[in-house]
Amino acid sequence: MSPPDNHASNLDTDAAELPTGFRYAGVTCGIKPSGKPDLSLIVSDQPVVAAGVYTRNQVVAAPVVLSRTRTPSASIRAVVTNSGNANACTGDQGMQDAVEMCDQVAELVGCSAQDVLVMSTGIIGKHLPMDCVQRGISAAHSQLASKHGSFLDSAEAIRTTDKDRKTVVHRMQLGERSFQIAAMAKGAGMIAPNMATMLSVILTDAPMTPDMAQASLQRAANASFNRVSVDGHTSTNDTLILLSSGSGAPLKGQDLETFQQELTAAAVQLAKKLVADGEGASHVMAIRIHGAEDEAAAELIARTVAASPLVKTAVTGGDPNWGRIVSAAGYSAARITPEKTSLEICGTTIYRDGSPIPYDESLLSEKMKSSSEVAIVLVVGNGPGTVEYWASDLTTDYVRLNSEYTT
Amino acid sequence: MSPPDNHASNLDTDAAELPTGFRYAGVTCGIKPSGKPDLSLIVSDQPVVAAGVYTRNQVVAAPVVLSRTRTPSASIRAVVTNSGNANACTGDQGMQDAVEMCDQVAELVGCSAQDVLVMSTGIIGKHLPMDCVQRGISAAHSQLASKHGSFLDSAEAIRTTDKDRKTVVHRMQLGERSFQIAAMAKGAGMIAPNMATMLSVILTDAPMTPDMAQASLQRAANASFNRVSVDGHTSTNDTLILLSSGSGAPLKGQDLETFQQELTAAAVQLAKKLVADGEGASHVMAIRIHGAEDEAAAELIARTVAASPLVKTAVTGGDPNWGRIVSAAGYSAARITPEKTSLEICGTTIYRDGSPIPYDESLLSEKMKSSSEVAIVLVVGNGPGTVEYWASDLTTDYVRLNSEYTT
Repeated sequence: MSPPDNHASNLDTDAAELPTGFRYAGVTCGIKPSGKPDLSLIVSDQPVVAAGVYTRNQVVAAPVVLSRTRTPSASIRAVVTNSGNANACTGDQGMQDAVEMCDQVAELVGCSAQDVLVMSTGIIGKHLPMDCVQRGISAAHSQLASKHGSFLDSAEAIRTTDKDRKTVVHRMQLGERSFQIAAMAKGAGMIAPNMATMLSVILTDAPMTPDMAQASLQRAANASFNRVSVDGHTSTNDTLILLSSGSGAPLKGQDLETFQQELTAAAVQLAKKLVADGEGASHVMAIRIHGAEDEAAAELIARTVAASPLVKTAVTGGDPNWGRIVSAAGYSAARITPEKTSLEICGTTIYRDGSPIPYDESLLSEKMKSSSEVAIVLVVGNGPGTVEYWASDLTTDYVRLNSEYTT
Repeated sequence: MSPPDNHASNLDTDAAELPTGFRYAGVTCGIKPSGKPDLSLIVSDQPVVAAGVYTRNQVVAAPVVLSRTRTPSASIRAVVTNSGNANACTGDQGMQDAVEMCDQVAELVGCSAQDVLVMSTGIIGKHLPMDCVQRGISAAHSQLASKHGSFLDSAEAIRTTDKDRKTVVHRMQLGERSFQIAAMAKGAGMIAPNMATMLSVILTDAPMTPDMAQASLQRAANASFNRVSVDGHTSTNDTLILLSSGSGAPLKGQDLETFQQELTAAAVQLAKKLVADGEGASHVMAIRIHGAEDEAAAELIARTVAASPLVKTAVTGGDPNWGRIVSAAGYSAARITPEKTSLEICGTTIYRDGSPIPYDESLLSEKMKSSSEVAIVLVVGNGPGTVEYWASDLTTDYVRLNSEYTT
C-alpha cells in the first residue's frame, strides 16, 4: 500500500499501514464559508487508551475544558473535531455546544459522552452553527472507514489556513511484534510554544497504559510542539491527543524506549511541518543553542531568538545579520557569556568568541535565500545546555494575511 | 522665542527657553553613506550633574560600557554621540575607539575624559571610521552654540531611521524660580522595554544632586521608555542621560515632586514619539490594563499584548479582533481572571466578563482605521494593578524595511 501522504517523506512510509482498530471520516458540514471540509471524526470500536496535552493559555476554549478532564483514559471511543470555528470565548453557550457535540457522537457510537474527546479550531468568539455541526457529525459517522483515504479525509477536515494537510505514518518493529503510528496535525497561525494553534491526533496500536501514554506524549510534546514558534501567540485551543488501540501486554523496557523515540520523531516531523507552513513563512529557522547553563536556559535563548521580528525579517531577506541574533540572545532571561559567544549560519562561522570574523557576505546571503531551512547555531558559553528549536520567518505575507483576516 | 520643534505640541512650549548652561552642535562627518548629519556634541562650560539609564541587554556596546561607569556624576562636561554605527560587538578595537572619542572631546573642552559621556547608534558589528569621527568632533566643537538651531542640529545628528527628529521642551515654575527641561531622543527599530534602541538626552537647569538625578531619571524611565515597544528587541546601545546644570540649593519636597512629574511627562512624550515613529508603524496602540494583581502583573500583561504579532496586525488592519487580545493576555506570565475579563477598543466595549457583547463591527473598524492612536482598555480582574503602555502596530512596511536593510 502506498504512503498516505507524500509529506511523510522523512519517515519510513513505504511499508506503512495504519494502526489497527480505528475508523476515520472527514466531511463538509458548512461551518467554513469556503465549503471546504470542516468536520472530522475518528472512532474506535473498542475502548482505547488516550492521553492529552493542552494549551497553557489561561483563556481556554470550551472543547479543551471538556477534553482535558477526560484524559488520560483507558476507555476513549471517539474524537470529534470541527474546523472554521474555535468555540473559544463563547461562555456558557459554547460549553453547552461542546457537550452536545460529544453527546451526539456518543449516541451514534454507543458509548458514554465521557469517552468522547472534542477539539475545535478557527475563529474565536463566535457561536458554533450547531445545525451544521449536527448534520456533519451524522454524515461523518455514516462514512467511517479504516481506509487510508478516510484517514486523509479526516486530516483534511481539521485544516484552517494550512496550505497542506499534515500527516505522518510510521511503522516500528519491536522484537517479533510490529506497530504503527499514524498522526495528523493542523497549524498555520498562533503557533507558539506551550503550544501552538495546533490540533494533532496521534494514533498507534502499540499497547500501553493511560499513565504510560500520558508520560510518553508529554515527553514527545516537550521536544517537538513545545519547541516551535510561528508568531509566539499561544492559542486558546491547542490540543494534542494520543490514542492507543493496542491490546496485550503494555510496552516496557527497551521496547517502550524505542516507542518513545518513534513517537518523538513523529511529533518532531509534524511540528516542523507546522513551522514550514506557518502563515506567510518563506523559511524555517532551525535554531540550535549550545553552551547554555542548562537545557531550560538554552530553550529560553532559542525562544527569544526565534521570536525576534528583527531576526525573523533578517532570515526573510537572506541577511546574515548576526548582530540581531547575538543581541536577541543577550536580552533573553537566560545568562549568556558574551565573550564566549559564537555564531554559525548555514554552516558558515561569522562570529567567534565575541568578535566578528570575515566571511563572504554575498555568498552566505545567497545560501540563506536558496535554503528552505536556515540553520542557526549559536554557542553562548561553556555550559552543558543545548536545545533544537524551529521557527518560521516573518514576511509581508504574514502581515497581509493577519491584517486582512476579519474577525 | 518660538518652540524649537513643533513635535513638542502637547507640552507648554510657547514660552519655552532652553535650560541655561549648555551649548550644542550637530554635523555631518561621513559615517552615514547618505551624507546626513551623524555627529552630535553637547557641552557645558561648568561641570554638571549627570544620571544615566542603560540597556539591560547582556551584549553591551562599547560606549555603554564606558558611559555607565561615569554616571551618576557631579562633574560631567560633555556628551558626544555618533549615529550610523553602533560600535557594538566590536571587541577591543571598539572599546579603544569609544575611549578615543572621549579623549578627543576632553582635550577640546579642557576636562578629564572621565567627565565625557559617549553614545553610539546604528549598524552593529562594524568598526567606527575613526578618521570621520575625529573630523566630526573637531567640526562640532567649533560650531557649539546655545541657540535653538544648534539644539535642533544636535537632535538631528542622533537620528538613524527615524522619520523626524524628536525633541520636547518644557518650562516649569517652582515658587519664584523657573526651570527648563529640553530633551531629544532617537528611536525607530529595536524598540523594546528595557529599553529601546534609543538614545535620549534630557537637559535641565533645575538644581539637583547626582543621587537625586539618578533616582528621578530611573522613575521617569520606568513610566515611559520602559513602557514602549516597537518590536520587543532590546538593543545593545540604549542610553538615556539626564544632565542638570542648575546651581543653588537642590530641589526638595514638593518642588522635587513637581519636577519629577514634569520630567516623567517629558519622558512619556518622547517615548510616545518613538512608538509613533516605530519602523513602518501605522498606528500607536495605547494599552491600558486594569484589575491585575499588581503593577508588575499589569505590565507583564500589557507587554505580552503589545508584543503579539496577531494583535499588532489586527490593529494594522482595523480589525477589532478581541479574541487575539484576550488570548494574548491569557498566555502572559501574569494571572488573569477570564470570567472577569472585559475589553474596550476606541471607547467601544466589545467583551464583558468573559463573554462577547454585540457591537457595530464596521463602525468600530472604521474608527480604528482612522485613529492614529488606538486605545485598548483591558480589565483582567478585580486587582489593584494598572498600567499604561504604548506600542506600534506591525505593517508590511516594517517587514520590508527590516528584510531589505543590509548588515
